[in-house]
Amino acid sequence: MNNELETNPELVTDILTRFIHEEVTKIGFNRVVVGISGGVDSSASAFLAARALGKENVWGIIMPYKTSSPESIRHGEMVARKTGIRSEVVEITPMVDAYFDKYPDAGNNRRGNVMARQRMVVLYDKSAEHEALVLGTSNKTESLLGYTTLWGDMACAINPLGDLYKTQVWQLAQYLGVPDEIIGKPPSADLWIGQTDEAELGFTYREVDRVLYLMVDKRFAIRELVEAGYEENFIRKVFEKIQRTQYKRRMPVVAKLSHRTVDRDFRYPRDWGV
Amino acid sequence: MNNELETNPELVTDILTRFIHEEVTKIGFNRVVVGISGGVDSSASAFLAARALGKENVWGIIMPYKTSSPESIRHGEMVARKTGIRSEVVEITPMVDAYFDKYPDAGNNRRGNVMARQRMVVLYDKSAEHEALVLGTSNKTESLLGYTTLWGDMACAINPLGDLYKTQVWQLAQYLGVPDEIIGKPPSADLWIGQTDEAELGFTYREVDRVLYLMVDKRFAIRELVEAGYEENFIRKVFEKIQRTQYKRRMPVVAKLSHRTVDRDFRYPRDWGV
Repeated sequence: MNNELETNPELVTDILTRFIHEEVTKIGFNRVVVGISGGVDSSASAFLAARALGKENVWGIIMPYKTSSPESIRHGEMVARKTGIRSEVVEITPMVDAYFDKYPDAGNNRRGNVMARQRMVVLYDKSAEHEALVLGTSNKTESLLGYTTLWGDMACAINPLGDLYKTQVWQLAQYLGVPDEIIGKPPSADLWIGQTDEAELGFTYREVDRVLYLMVDKRFAIRELVEAGYEENFIRKVFEKIQRTQYKRRMPVVAKLSHRTVDRDFRYPRDWGV
Repeated sequence: MNNELETNPELVTDILTRFIHEEVTKIGFNRVVVGISGGVDSSASAFLAARALGKENVWGIIMPYKTSSPESIRHGEMVARKTGIRSEVVEITPMVDAYFDKYPDAGNNRRGNVMARQRMVVLYDKSAEHEALVLGTSNKTESLLGYTTLWGDMACAINPLGDLYKTQVWQLAQYLGVPDEIIGKPPSADLWIGQTDEAELGFTYREVDRVLYLMVDKRFAIRELVEAGYEENFIRKVFEKIQRTQYKRRMPVVAKLSHRTVDRDFRYPRDWGV
């Protein structure tokens, strides 16, 4: 199964740099902003953007919270240095704390979601300041599992990584020259101290990517996955995560009253006017 | 033409209250939060929600900024009183100012977008606190014109008003018992002092709704609208607004690499699992 998740990183890089260049320039822009967290996904996005648009046209925005690991910030700065893109640090601590001052009892989930959304607010404001598009950094694994914050880390104009599983992003990152230190560390949303994706999800990316690939891309039924040797409880857990988080991958539901409803019958492409 | 924008408010109310009730309860919720601005749209949404779910299951969140008109707050509170819903005031001033302290030169557009997005952040956090869905308040006119903030005021789980033009929301609001004071005042996003929608857009809702209805719902071509007596420059201006803001009505573009890409080939309904 591993083979099927193996990509041709040279070809993928070629497709994705063309994608970024075309999607940005065809609507009259030439710059992007990208939130760099110090993780592998945002590093890969930044490396791709620098190739596609030239390093002077990419702004990497590092947005730490007071509890963010110093390593994350250092890795973000390392990516900026390695790629030569412009970079800026914007702390989200003042906005997040200004809000939670009134809700000291709010738990990690609420805090994590507010942080992810505050980063979106900063990134979109920076895109306005720099006349740039917001480049996304979410991969297919986290999108399908809904391991994201709605209107937070998924919010962007264009996303080069959204059709690559996490294990495929690792392959791409290696080819692009993302430092091994970044590729090798345990993935973490870094929303609270000690958080790692795999501990929170309860399985590894290597395990889940194989199941996701068979389930979504190859349309295996649960029965077929069991026959292929996967553990039924695990398959059902993954399937339920996909189903239960579908709302994060669709626009809001509008009550239908007319013949042409936005996002229902009125669905031209985003660049319809170009 | 006016006739065609005339609705049957009793029927519309019946459809929309059923819509709210069904969409909320079928996924196991029974509460909504709704941002109440003191304007006619959010008032109509709140009145509908109170009918659909019972007043004790609706939280109206009033989110003023320090420059918000005192009248807006008073009208928001009036809606809470009239409907009997629960309500809470959460100032967005601390979060907005914490951010712009560092960017004193940012103009009205940037400030307005940050305010709209901070309201989204609050509303979603309140929805987590109250185990509720976020009820939308955007109408079809502002959606089609893109007179909205991406990931801001359009962000919601379900939107009962998204298929009603502004002039139709006025009709509905009257039927629902929204106070005349609210229905009669000039629509405003209230993002800065003296702002009104119609001054900013450069035309009235009554004018634009007729053109939008013919253009979108009846599929009139520009030529046919000119023949019907509308001014060509105005028609083209409206058409361009729709085209140029299509990106606000679609999910981000993901670079396609696999057979099944999120939002491209993988597009089950939001409530696929129910």
